[in-house]
Amino acid sequence: MTTTTPQYLTGNAAALNEFIDRFDVFLFDCDGVLWSGDHTFPGTVETLELLRSRGKQVVFVTNNSTKSRADYKKKLDGLNIPSNVEEIFSSSYSASVYIARILKLPENKRKVFVLGETGIEQELRNENVPFIGGTDPALRRDLTPEDYKLMAKGDPSLIDPEVGVVLVGLDFHINYLKLSLAFQYIRRGAVFLATNIDSTLPNQGALFPGAGSMSAPLIMMLGQEPIALGKPSQAMMDAIEGKFQFDRNRACMVGDRINTDIRFGVEGKLGGTLAVLTGVSTKDDILNGPVRPVAYVDKLSDFLGAK
Amino acid sequence: MTTTTPQYLTGNAAALNEFIDRFDVFLFDCDGVLWSGDHTFPGTVETLELLRSRGKQVVFVTNNSTKSRADYKKKLDGLNIPSNVEEIFSSSYSASVYIARILKLPENKRKVFVLGETGIEQELRNENVPFIGGTDPALRRDLTPEDYKLMAKGDPSLIDPEVGVVLVGLDFHINYLKLSLAFQYIRRGAVFLATNIDSTLPNQGALFPGAGSMSAPLIMMLGQEPIALGKPSQAMMDAIEGKFQFDRNRACMVGDRINTDIRFGVEGKLGGTLAVLTGVSTKDDILNGPVRPVAYVDKLSDFLGAK
Repeated sequence: MTTTTPQYLTGNAAALNEFIDRFDVFLFDCDGVLWSGDHTFPGTVETLELLRSRGKQVVFVTNNSTKSRADYKKKLDGLNIPSNVEEIFSSSYSASVYIARILKLPENKRKVFVLGETGIEQELRNENVPFIGGTDPALRRDLTPEDYKLMAKGDPSLIDPEVGVVLVGLDFHINYLKLSLAFQYIRRGAVFLATNIDSTLPNQGALFPGAGSMSAPLIMMLGQEPIALGKPSQAMMDAIEGKFQFDRNRACMVGDRINTDIRFGVEGKLGGTLAVLTGVSTKDDILNGPVRPVAYVDKLSDFLGAK
Repeated sequence: MTTTTPQYLTGNAAALNEFIDRFDVFLFDCDGVLWSGDHTFPGTVETLELLRSRGKQVVFVTNNSTKSRADYKKKLDGLNIPSNVEEIFSSSYSASVYIARILKLPENKRKVFVLGETGIEQELRNENVPFIGGTDPALRRDLTPEDYKLMAKGDPSLIDPEVGVVLVGLDFHINYLKLSLAFQYIRRGAVFLATNIDSTLPNQGALFPGAGSMSAPLIMMLGQEPIALGKPSQAMMDAIEGKFQFDRNRACMVGDRINTDIRFGVEGKLGGTLAVLTGVSTKDDILNGPVRPVAYVDKLSDFLGAK
């Protein structure tokens, strides 16, 4: 952890140019950096253009697990932010890559039980990972007395013997049956994965249950934490590096949250971390917290001062 | 915490008689002590008869929040265990008494938002506590985009301004909407209560999500623990004492779980605690754990040896 004072770049053209020149890759957290809610910050598009025009690789890194990369591209389109799918790295994609390429599952244990929405399902499909659960409408029902018996004895009509992974993301259709099934699978040896562990999800200026809140009952029941694949987990950094093959010394993580974004970059030993003040963390958090970025700006578009 | 060696009473008629004579009141945990699942242990009925014939007050203490005392009486009837409603103390009843008689709520904040089943609703009704949520079928639906806006601004069409308590018990119909509402209420100042914090619920020899698992997402989101009203919380002991007006020195807690039942009695400074080996805790837990009962028997019906 660095405890030096972060450099303030806003309004300092020379320092901004020097900072940009130090990196080949910029990893962007999105909400709170590029936009807030449905509102794109002024200058976001121009700043991304500036970086691209100087040959920088731009990557959009999001813990949002409900969307696939294709969905997320549509969201960026709707916000008028030019992008392509290959620049997007979501926790649903990160989790799918982890399962498909890193987890060594036995031949007969390759199925994933999903607690989550369609974004996860799409990314699993893209990686040819078989799955059950997720948005299956058959699971949107109450438990019956018969279910308890079938689950207790691991009856294959309810407990698929090929499930070797439980992947928990944000599930707007969480229910008692799905939680019960996820628990039985993990107790029977399935790997416990989470797309991300953000406890809350901001929306309309209020907070709502996040993906971490879906894992919370299972963590309490099992006395076991999941392997998390979103920021700040380094499993996500490894997956990003695996895809873009960059030099970590010449990569910079940009974000508004010290505890997730900046920590993600610092623990990933990236050459740079940059905080913006348009989101969650305050100037005091940035200057005096236990985790500090290399530099900070008031807002991302302050980079336009480098022109 | 006592660290003396628990006395083994099985087969020792004199010790059994002496033990019984020391108490006026016996508080019984039920599952694992009187029965297991749907199966009443042999000798349960005769043991309760023996105690009653010697003038002992018997109290059935259960963390089960889905049942009211009236429901629980029916369960005891079904197991052929004679009882009356006044002998039953459930966590749903404990919570209702706590809200009605102990919590000092402002006049305009007396409503309870319930995450739970009909047992809680019945006990709140018995204590004349107004409530919303619970089994209301209107809450068994998805969140709409409009809901996010209404919740964020605290619109009274969705956020009842009179709610001053969120009470979380076991809810077989837990969903994203209910969790979101519970969170908004607590964030707006409602008291966070839980009937009990057992993470799991045994059924058919397997484990399923318990009441504590319903609180888990809220605990993670809020960074705050609820006040729990079931064993081993002393709020429950206070409520039992308030009702039965006994001398704690002359009361004995009987149970199969060291961490809940025996701890409940020890922390409540009861004169006696008695463990049985027909449930969760083992002889090793009893003899060598950090919390130890005054005495133990292999099974409850060993008390018939006192005849």
